[in-house]
Amino acid sequence: MASRTSTDLVHPDVTDLDFTTVLAALGDPVRLAIVARLGDAGTELACTTFALPVSKSTQSGHFRVLREAGVIRQRDEGTRRFNSLRRTDLDTRFPGLLDLAIPQGRKVFEGW
Amino acid sequence: MASRTSTDLVHPDVTDLDFTTVLAALGDPVRLAIVARLGDAGTELACTTFALPVSKSTQSGHFRVLREAGVIRQRDEGTRRFNSLRRTDLDTRFPGLLDLAIPQGRKVFEGW
Repeated sequence: MASRTSTDLVHPDVTDLDFTTVLAALGDPVRLAIVARLGDAGTELACTTFALPVSKSTQSGHFRVLREAGVIRQRDEGTRRFNSLRRTDLDTRFPGLLDLAIPQGRKVFEGW
Repeated sequence: MASRTSTDLVHPDVTDLDFTTVLAALGDPVRLAIVARLGDAGTELACTTFALPVSKSTQSGHFRVLREAGVIRQRDEGTRRFNSLRRTDLDTRFPGLLDLAIPQGRKVFEGW
């Protein structure tokens, strides 16, 4: 069986980012918390490092929504999937949105 | 039959506004366009004055989502329902969000 490769992972171009799609992606406590975590980390994080109060499959779904909306970038390395925030792309297209969202996502984490 | 009154319309307190609920409410092109229209009007507008490319019942659903999220205020006068943007409440709780959302909602309108 072929191993999963990063080429399977679709990412929208920065010019194709859609404001309502991005808002809908951020409009969920778990996804907002993921974004805050990635924003605070400032680097890529493996999916396994997020301590989220949801099942593994639900978690995967949340990462996928964020990737397809263009909020995060994902890449595979061996059996691990890494995630990073598309900070520059989002700051370019929707300036101020992440600055507003990240502190709110931190509060979600603090509430868990 | 009793006429519909504004007391039927539930509005969350400003302190109860939830960031992800507000983002999810704004994360739809029709709802974002409604918000832009109300923001630009700077006053209340009757539901009938919005030229939206959706059915009347779908439109009512969108207004309801916005009200329940705390984005708009609704009141009934006779048979008409008026809508206004909760600009001060939103600016207080999530500064900058509407400044970002309204221009994006205008683009939605322009695309119709």
